[in-house]
Amino acid sequence: MRAATDQDIRRTARALLVEHGPEAVTLRAIARELGITAPALYRYYGSRDDLVEHLRLDVCADLATELAEDISAVPEDGASQLFAICKGFRRWALTHTKEFTLVFASPTGNVGSAPGSALSRVDEPFGRIFLATAGRVLATQNLATPPSEVVPPEIRDDLAGFQADLLAVLRDSGLAFPAEKLDLGTTYLMIQFWARLYGHVTLEVFGNYPIPVAKPDVLFEAMLADLAREIGLPIP
Amino acid sequence: MRAATDQDIRRTARALLVEHGPEAVTLRAIARELGITAPALYRYYGSRDDLVEHLRLDVCADLATELAEDISAVPEDGASQLFAICKGFRRWALTHTKEFTLVFASPTGNVGSAPGSALSRVDEPFGRIFLATAGRVLATQNLATPPSEVVPPEIRDDLAGFQADLLAVLRDSGLAFPAEKLDLGTTYLMIQFWARLYGHVTLEVFGNYPIPVAKPDVLFEAMLADLAREIGLPIP
Repeated sequence: MRAATDQDIRRTARALLVEHGPEAVTLRAIARELGITAPALYRYYGSRDDLVEHLRLDVCADLATELAEDISAVPEDGASQLFAICKGFRRWALTHTKEFTLVFASPTGNVGSAPGSALSRVDEPFGRIFLATAGRVLATQNLATPPSEVVPPEIRDDLAGFQADLLAVLRDSGLAFPAEKLDLGTTYLMIQFWARLYGHVTLEVFGNYPIPVAKPDVLFEAMLADLAREIGLPIP
Repeated sequence: MRAATDQDIRRTARALLVEHGPEAVTLRAIARELGITAPALYRYYGSRDDLVEHLRLDVCADLATELAEDISAVPEDGASQLFAICKGFRRWALTHTKEFTLVFASPTGNVGSAPGSALSRVDEPFGRIFLATAGRVLATQNLATPPSEVVPPEIRDDLAGFQADLLAVLRDSGLAFPAEKLDLGTTYLMIQFWARLYGHVTLEVFGNYPIPVAKPDVLFEAMLADLAREIGLPIP
């Protein structure tokens, strides 16, 4: 019996995911596919959760690579790049529904606090590209941010933590970023923006529009135009 | 071997769903639980898809029953009831994550057009209660609806179909409803409203906020307040 490499394991896990969905990714199934014993897998991964977490990061890295290509094809004005990411995220989700389900629509066992979510890790490649682009928008555009009284006092501590993470990502991405542009209202806006983008894409991936939509791409772009209007960006 | 009733089958399917998630609901597992043969199940359900579709409708009916109780506890002014439904939907999703996943976050095999979605059926109890409440809001409040140029021409036919369905639901619910209040902009607004509600709830159920959120209920209510402000309803 030959030894399986970490690369073999991850490739097999990805193939099971793409073919059969997240629940098919089990240590037993991977061992069977590779013709090895399950204990041999434990040399690399302590548990299924551990393996799945690595798989999520692999998927996020591929998504980030796709989005980086999308970004490189549009003007570097921040807004064009932000909307390129939004469209790219939707395209990726619709063409990679199993991977999307794993990373963005699977219980993490941490309802409400999300420490297990790929997105809650600022060191995760999709989050990083999204936040770096948002930072470029903040640095180059004057956004219509919500007045501070819209931000409930009870969530200001959470937002302040996010602010600090964001500033670290922006510093790492080499962007000269005026920290005073990232106030609590702007941070709150970013979360609302993500919620609307995520909502539309998830709705479409899972077919939950209340009506059959013949041109879902038009509906999506209308939503992006609404968002642009509301936050004061040029309409994409 | 005793005969299983339809009720036995549905109860067993629900138990498998609640315990292990959507993928555990198979005809084989149900037959095993009931101590019958799989072919005996085919007398009731032609396929797993057929059974799952009935299970989805059962879940929707239970959700609608919960929401009807929420509605009955607030003033009949339309807006209070609408926000009671929004909060009730979130509460139900967070406490019934497996059922939520089945109905609202599982591939229907119809990406983009959604004919298999429970929500795309106007005769489905959750959709009906949501739409009847929205109708009460339209009948009693003056909403700030988007100007018609915001609605892209390419989706007007889809929206016109939705309008007709909506008017039928409202007529059936016994509401004296001025049809001219349901223009395309209003219909479009309803879809955007649902997308934002669904987005926030799904984000929270699957732990996809970009940060750990200590008070997700506050964030959710801030989103409802944003929505209320934007569409011209009293802030809940």
